[in-house]
Amino acid sequence: MSDVPKTHPRYLSLTLRDTIVAGVEQGITSIHGLIAHGRGEAFDYLIGEATQPFATEAIRAAAAMLRLAEHPIISVNGNVAALAPEALIELGQVLNAPLEVNIFHTETGREQRIREHLLKHKARLLTSPAKEGVENSPDVLMPTTEAQLSYIDSNRKFVHPDGIFKADVVFVPLEDGDRCEALRKMGKSVVTVDLNPMSRTAKQASITIVDNVVRALPLLCEEIRNFSDPAEQDTLKTYSNEAVLQKALRYISGSGNGD
Amino acid sequence: MSDVPKTHPRYLSLTLRDTIVAGVEQGITSIHGLIAHGRGEAFDYLIGEATQPFATEAIRAAAAMLRLAEHPIISVNGNVAALAPEALIELGQVLNAPLEVNIFHTETGREQRIREHLLKHKARLLTSPAKEGVENSPDVLMPTTEAQLSYIDSNRKFVHPDGIFKADVVFVPLEDGDRCEALRKMGKSVVTVDLNPMSRTAKQASITIVDNVVRALPLLCEEIRNFSDPAEQDTLKTYSNEAVLQKALRYISGSGNGD
Repeated sequence: MSDVPKTHPRYLSLTLRDTIVAGVEQGITSIHGLIAHGRGEAFDYLIGEATQPFATEAIRAAAAMLRLAEHPIISVNGNVAALAPEALIELGQVLNAPLEVNIFHTETGREQRIREHLLKHKARLLTSPAKEGVENSPDVLMPTTEAQLSYIDSNRKFVHPDGIFKADVVFVPLEDGDRCEALRKMGKSVVTVDLNPMSRTAKQASITIVDNVVRALPLLCEEIRNFSDPAEQDTLKTYSNEAVLQKALRYISGSGNGD
Repeated sequence: MSDVPKTHPRYLSLTLRDTIVAGVEQGITSIHGLIAHGRGEAFDYLIGEATQPFATEAIRAAAAMLRLAEHPIISVNGNVAALAPEALIELGQVLNAPLEVNIFHTETGREQRIREHLLKHKARLLTSPAKEGVENSPDVLMPTTEAQLSYIDSNRKFVHPDGIFKADVVFVPLEDGDRCEALRKMGKSVVTVDLNPMSRTAKQASITIVDNVVRALPLLCEEIRNFSDPAEQDTLKTYSNEAVLQKALRYISGSGNGD
């Protein structure tokens, strides 16, 4: 698909971009989503393109919050569906929680294509030799007009009554700020993954994992698998999202000498 | 085109993105170019979305270098063509220099569409009431197989013999690192506009304007119009690109408390 020569010094990064560009070509990712991806790339660069301690700390708290939730839900948009479909299915399995498609730009049929893309990867996981968690294979819910979020004007207000609407904890990687705010106003807890520690989403979420979603999701699944109640509840009690974001900011401010 | 509600807190920024998305829809901008735009957005945010003193300093030096060049050339890719077509034509007029289309991802017919897009804006300028610089209306050159750049593998090596190949000073906004390096190795001076002061392009260019190309181009045209030889040659003698990039980096590191 790409004609990037192997001698190009940014070969790996440019090749990784092809995954998200393929998402657009498959009608899963919005072309606006590519711009958001680019923003993420810039911030990933600034955190050294690695999972830093402030991300590990947030992942640990996120695992506890999601595990202790009564009705956790995994909200999926076109970017995360393209970048990490299998990790999303795996997260649904370990949490025993459904996925729900929720997108900002609603080109015709895109929601349905995202759902089919996720189901394809779910089928692949179920037929893989490991066959772990077959019994917990997650549903993929779709937006409805039956249930609507308050405090929000865009298409993202349409949700599923048994999914985001009912949820007490919403996992929304690569979120936009206004919906994060609306979810919080409705009294829900929000766990997000956002590479920009200064974004409105990052600031308004209950727990913000400042990391690349491709790196963070497998670590979050692992942390949930290893979860043991009493100790982890303490993690949540002492967790401060603001303090963690400050650590991320300090890291970014202190860097700036990479290539 | 976009269904962003006006109450969305990032309405302006999201609307601006529509310009570059329209570039993709017109077949001018590569969809990979959207990712690059997003990276730029993130760094623009970090410099306060304004032309800072380190950019003004670089613009002054760039005006002198371009004005003193024997064969200046303006290299145009799909992003800058979509974002600032009129400013590019105006720059060609004030410099009396041609534009040359040079792109990385060569989807069928894209180079030709970029050329037509520029010519359309040139025609609009020529028939506008102001009619300034009609006599200097710039050519738009195309890549050829007759002339090739050394030290470069990608499609960007194909250039015009009377354009980039012959040029002593190349103005290349939103450049990729390997071509900037190749141009320098061939003994050419390079003036670039790049929002990331840590990029390879930024480091390897002779003069790097760390600013949004949409803000920087009109300022550069203005500076060239007000150019007066003896004083400005001194500007060039004392200019240090490394020092200017250090100022940009210090600005970015010192910020990080915006919203």
